[in-house]
Amino acid sequence: MTTRTLGVIMNGVTGRMGHNQHLVRSVLAINEQGGVALGDGERVLLRPVLVGRNSAKLRALAQTYGLEEWTTSLGEALDDPGAEIYFDAQTTQARVPAVTKAIEAGKHVYVEKPTAESLHGATELAGLARTAGVKNGVVQDKLFLPGLLKLKRLVDGGFFGRILSVRGEFGYWVFEGDWQAAQRPSWNYRSEDGGGIVLDMFPHWTYVLESLFGRVDAVTARAVTHIAERSDEDGKPYDSTADDAAYGIFELDGGIVAQINSSWCVRVNRDELLEFQVDGTHGSAVAGLRNCRVQHRGMTPKPVWNPDVPAEHGFRGQWHEVPDNVDFDNAFKTQWEMFIRHVADDAPFPHDFAAGARGVYVAEAGLRSSAEGRRIELEPLDDHS
Amino acid sequence: MTTRTLGVIMNGVTGRMGHNQHLVRSVLAINEQGGVALGDGERVLLRPVLVGRNSAKLRALAQTYGLEEWTTSLGEALDDPGAEIYFDAQTTQARVPAVTKAIEAGKHVYVEKPTAESLHGATELAGLARTAGVKNGVVQDKLFLPGLLKLKRLVDGGFFGRILSVRGEFGYWVFEGDWQAAQRPSWNYRSEDGGGIVLDMFPHWTYVLESLFGRVDAVTARAVTHIAERSDEDGKPYDSTADDAAYGIFELDGGIVAQINSSWCVRVNRDELLEFQVDGTHGSAVAGLRNCRVQHRGMTPKPVWNPDVPAEHGFRGQWHEVPDNVDFDNAFKTQWEMFIRHVADDAPFPHDFAAGARGVYVAEAGLRSSAEGRRIELEPLDDHS
Amino acid sequence: MTTRTLGVIMNGVTGRMGHNQHLVRSVLAINEQGGVALGDGERVLLRPVLVGRNSAKLRALAQTYGLEEWTTSLGEALDDPGAEIYFDAQTTQARVPAVTKAIEAGKHVYVEKPTAESLHGATELAGLARTAGVKNGVVQDKLFLPGLLKLKRLVDGGFFGRILSVRGEFGYWVFEGDWQAAQRPSWNYRSEDGGGIVLDMFPHWTYVLESLFGRVDAVTARAVTHIAERSDEDGKPYDSTADDAAYGIFELDGGIVAQINSSWCVRVNRDELLEFQVDGTHGSAVAGLRNCRVQHRGMTPKPVWNPDVPAEHGFRGQWHEVPDNVDFDNAFKTQWEMFIRHVADDAPFPHDFAAGARGVYVAEAGLRSSAEGRRIELEPLDDHS
Amino acid sequence: MTTRTLGVIMNGVTGRMGHNQHLVRSVLAINEQGGVALGDGERVLLRPVLVGRNSAKLRALAQTYGLEEWTTSLGEALDDPGAEIYFDAQTTQARVPAVTKAIEAGKHVYVEKPTAESLHGATELAGLARTAGVKNGVVQDKLFLPGLLKLKRLVDGGFFGRILSVRGEFGYWVFEGDWQAAQRPSWNYRSEDGGGIVLDMFPHWTYVLESLFGRVDAVTARAVTHIAERSDEDGKPYDSTADDAAYGIFELDGGIVAQINSSWCVRVNRDELLEFQVDGTHGSAVAGLRNCRVQHRGMTPKPVWNPDVPAEHGFRGQWHEVPDNVDFDNAFKTQWEMFIRHVADDAPFPHDFAAGARGVYVAEAGLRSSAEGRRIELEPLDDHS
Repeated sequence: MTTRTLGVIMNGVTGRMGHNQHLVRSVLAINEQGGVALGDGERVLLRPVLVGRNSAKLRALAQTYGLEEWTTSLGEALDDPGAEIYFDAQTTQARVPAVTKAIEAGKHVYVEKPTAESLHGATELAGLARTAGVKNGVVQDKLFLPGLLKLKRLVDGGFFGRILSVRGEFGYWVFEGDWQAAQRPSWNYRSEDGGGIVLDMFPHWTYVLESLFGRVDAVTARAVTHIAERSDEDGKPYDSTADDAAYGIFELDGGIVAQINSSWCVRVNRDELLEFQVDGTHGSAVAGLRNCRVQHRGMTPKPVWNPDVPAEHGFRGQWHEVPDNVDFDNAFKTQWEMFIRHVADDAPFPHDFAAGARGVYVAEAGLRSSAEGRRIELEPLDDHS
Repeated sequence: MTTRTLGVIMNGVTGRMGHNQHLVRSVLAINEQGGVALGDGERVLLRPVLVGRNSAKLRALAQTYGLEEWTTSLGEALDDPGAEIYFDAQTTQARVPAVTKAIEAGKHVYVEKPTAESLHGATELAGLARTAGVKNGVVQDKLFLPGLLKLKRLVDGGFFGRILSVRGEFGYWVFEGDWQAAQRPSWNYRSEDGGGIVLDMFPHWTYVLESLFGRVDAVTARAVTHIAERSDEDGKPYDSTADDAAYGIFELDGGIVAQINSSWCVRVNRDELLEFQVDGTHGSAVAGLRNCRVQHRGMTPKPVWNPDVPAEHGFRGQWHEVPDNVDFDNAFKTQWEMFIRHVADDAPFPHDFAAGARGVYVAEAGLRSSAEGRRIELEPLDDHS
Repeated sequence: MTTRTLGVIMNGVTGRMGHNQHLVRSVLAINEQGGVALGDGERVLLRPVLVGRNSAKLRALAQTYGLEEWTTSLGEALDDPGAEIYFDAQTTQARVPAVTKAIEAGKHVYVEKPTAESLHGATELAGLARTAGVKNGVVQDKLFLPGLLKLKRLVDGGFFGRILSVRGEFGYWVFEGDWQAAQRPSWNYRSEDGGGIVLDMFPHWTYVLESLFGRVDAVTARAVTHIAERSDEDGKPYDSTADDAAYGIFELDGGIVAQINSSWCVRVNRDELLEFQVDGTHGSAVAGLRNCRVQHRGMTPKPVWNPDVPAEHGFRGQWHEVPDNVDFDNAFKTQWEMFIRHVADDAPFPHDFAAGARGVYVAEAGLRSSAEGRRIELEPLDDHS
Repeated sequence: MTTRTLGVIMNGVTGRMGHNQHLVRSVLAINEQGGVALGDGERVLLRPVLVGRNSAKLRALAQTYGLEEWTTSLGEALDDPGAEIYFDAQTTQARVPAVTKAIEAGKHVYVEKPTAESLHGATELAGLARTAGVKNGVVQDKLFLPGLLKLKRLVDGGFFGRILSVRGEFGYWVFEGDWQAAQRPSWNYRSEDGGGIVLDMFPHWTYVLESLFGRVDAVTARAVTHIAERSDEDGKPYDSTADDAAYGIFELDGGIVAQINSSWCVRVNRDELLEFQVDGTHGSAVAGLRNCRVQHRGMTPKPVWNPDVPAEHGFRGQWHEVPDNVDFDNAFKTQWEMFIRHVADDAPFPHDFAAGARGVYVAEAGLRSSAEGRRIELEPLDDHS
């Protein structure tokens, strides 16, 4: 059994998600388990090279995990020929220039979503990577959560018959910051800083819908700012200029309608923060991050509308939990392993920049639909070929 | 204590709703309890005069409840000067001509929704009643269900602070009729027979939203036919030409967004067949037909998005049931008593033909929004002044 | 709404099943509900004419239910031209001669199973009825039990994918009669009196299997007499000469294997006295007389054989009850109504003498298989065309 | 208290069962508890000598458990005069030649089932051991599971009166490998690789039946391949050529009928993966791997067939759990201790090669019965004398 080591430049992992999910629970966890196994039995270990703007934070991070390589110079990191992969978890605004440099340096690139702030930037980046012939991927972690993996299993197993509709509810109450501190950064609520729930969440809905059910053909959305004033990290009031809730209707290939609400101004009357209900001719499912419950056609009750009778059915008790049957790994790590096999073993990896660009496309269309009060039809992107 | 008797012409009460809810549980139940009490202590008993097309059914109904007056001639019934009220629960197509005659005969009129098949017919009928100076009302039973009465109580008590949004989910699985018999009549699924879920349910949503939260200013909807072929009462297949699901976004006066899904192709993952969630700055509520649960601002958890942690919160357990505090009467009877006091005592009654016309207006706008792929703005109807 | 009356000669209804199920819960219950509704709205009432050997019992039965027509002469009853239907619930040995006479008198015939003691007799009777052109039917009550109706619904709805196998367990402990009185008549245990569990139950399995899953192509059975001596109704010991348990393997059209055990010498470790488990590629079901539980492919656990771990799965809790969705009527009455519509309205009725003959055929083959120690292949019966 | 040490050559313990059950939970666990106590108080410790084909695996295994003796040369191991026992857990195909060598070297031999691939090989091996005068034994672990030990206790205590019948259900759903990974190796489903459920499970049924109830005199079986195509460990489709389900009827000495279904295509509607129901004149029992429940004659209900009554009896609640009364040890270890006492103390050990040969005999007969469509009678094997 042979082993080889792949250098991975990690830019922007001092933030919460980059640190916890990408560095610790993905890259370091892969090394701890002995690397990623390839088809021929060879194993790939990873050598992280940390890049960031704040040297104090980088040094501390490196010390904590016993890492030796870190730098505040992206150029220096890109000069390392053994570092074949560039990973980017910076803010969206910083992404395009850094990834462009990495592509020009011949690196394979793996980045957080959205790949760019605009469809134009996203398609350009996809074209650049394709022309340069480097492997490219975008993080689509929700696809690898246990709840959605079980939902995918049901789709693949033909559980639903013909799928008719999808309902999605995402959101929770983000405190205004005056009375109780907000649990999200203030820039999320300022459009001038790249905030807004449509830009944040529509890319997620795009890859979930397109991976599980079919291409998004049209979007109708109403994006609003329910809370017009919030208080920031220092307790100072500011105007919320970005949308904090979006009510969307996505029409998918094959006539499926997906109605998804995204909101930071909603209290959670669900089992999980994110839930999808899928209804098909042969059965329905409700999937969250962790769990997935179903009701088959043969198990469907026949309620009759009768307001005189108090508790006709215990409806929620008529759904049943799908068993795990496997041990689910961390969602981010699962996709990291796929990308490593894509780079080292040429294994297929559908979550590329072209797929990432579609997420930006749908987000832009959603905002335009809301501004213009009309349904926006979407077309296939050339880059997706 | 003096008592007087009011004649009520009841047209179309051989059907299920007319028979059970209007005749038995409202009119006869009012007499059984000794009538409707007016402000001055006087009580009003009701003398039902049944009208219909099928004399055998009318005779049987009259015999069952010991009633003596029934006729197949509407004109004959309208000639009775002691019958001051005309009630109509016929099919929608028969309503306008019959109610017109009743108004011309000087009767006060109380009718099932929708008041007409088109906005044009509805506003004409409202104008006719206003000109004639007769009292007029439309059934809006859902407002008087325990769940919605408790929700109204919360609104009136200022529980929500500023209301931001309303979510509504209505529906259940109506069987296709091939494999298991359908629990709704086949005409509901044929537009040529007046079917369709938008025409059926949007009038309900209109009076619920406008009575509780504010006027509907704009509607964006996607109405679809998910199941294209069904089997009828005799097991024969037919084409479903009417919409069986509608995904709607209603914008209300004051910036409230109400997103409501209506569907006969959805399996019930709720506590009740109809549920509204209302979110405001100070608190949220989830109301069904019977129950109403709340979560106040001070009780709101602060979830952080973290897919690694399995069961962060038992979110549904963080809502608490609103107590009844009163014995809720039958919703239909409650509104009948209001209308009787309106007629006999001049008590206020906001549920008039103008309000009814708005329901037809919103339904028409919903269908047009779906057909044209755009948001439709609504205006105040003149009749509402 | 017109009504007509059909005379029904009922022979052998002084016994428990004939009395309870056929006379009281079927024929009299049909009259009580206002008859059987035909397609054109007409209703058919039944006029029972009781026939039997014991005049005292007949008179008592007639008095109890206020019936006026009874006779000990079959010929006299058959002379009544208004009695268009002959029903037979006598002992098997008396059936063929009586039914033959009824056919010769031009009556439509409806009889208990088995239609005859031998295949020869059963096919002759089927041929006779066919030649005479009279409507003919055999009781197949189990098909109309709630549990099996729900199972049929699952089959028709495609729940199982490809059906692989059926397991059936029928039986209970019939006391030997010495220590506690037996709960079945002693002739059941004497082959010279037409007893034996194969002759009793294999006709049931035949119509259940052939109606739900496919034609029986081959049968392999082991019929045994586990308890060689029993005590009869008077407490007197007698030799059990008939089989009291049968272990059968039925091969069905399409490769389905149905393994069914029938036994009067087994203690009940099941939810119901009769249970079928059906396994298919997409799901499995366990159906009894009343209930039906399922486990879909997507809900199937993945147990690994590991005797060291005590309670790997709560297997039985992983099955879920199919809802009724309709009010199930008495199984016998349901089939009676079908036969009445078959006679009066020419509605289809697949449970004819030819189907009944197949049950006798399979029973005979089962006994031969056991005697000769080999698998017996079955052929289509000419009469079945 | 004196102690002596017995060398045990262990061939094929790098596999899951050999490693976990034989090496760790039996041989090493025996040493940990201070050895096996003989009748005279002396204790026997075991000195394992690992033999295998893969030196890396052997070395790792030896290191993990601090063992010093391992070799890839069987001959070398057999040369060790202190190693009096040879144990074999290799694949079936490798068993006969290795065991033959061990016998020729004068070792006592203890082996996994089946002892050989064919009856011919199994009887030859049994003859060889008998001629050589070495002690010989075959693993029959299921006999020493708590559920079956309690069942044996009931048999020995006369609980059943005369035993009439045995029902056995074994199996679970083995996933096809396309949609969810299979939980068994693919060779199990290819007859050319020694797969098939009859060869795997009939040897188990043979020793269970013959140890508890009586010699198998005849077998009638139907072995089928329900799932014709599966996907292997790499996700590649392959043809299933071996039987994946077998419906068997075993006739035992004394007229007992044992009907046993074995299937990898069945969903588990039982308390345990394997269950036997035993019915006797005085009582019945249902035994699984862990538990055993009984219903005594005096506790037997008297159900009457009556489909009109919904829930006649809660039948499953009428059985009662047999208490453990002892701490059950690991099943494999228990039999190891017996074999050690057989070798060192000449204690009786009925699970010899002759008994093992009968398992192969019954499996062969089952396959022949299925192929020829007839009942196969079995004879006593000469070796068993």
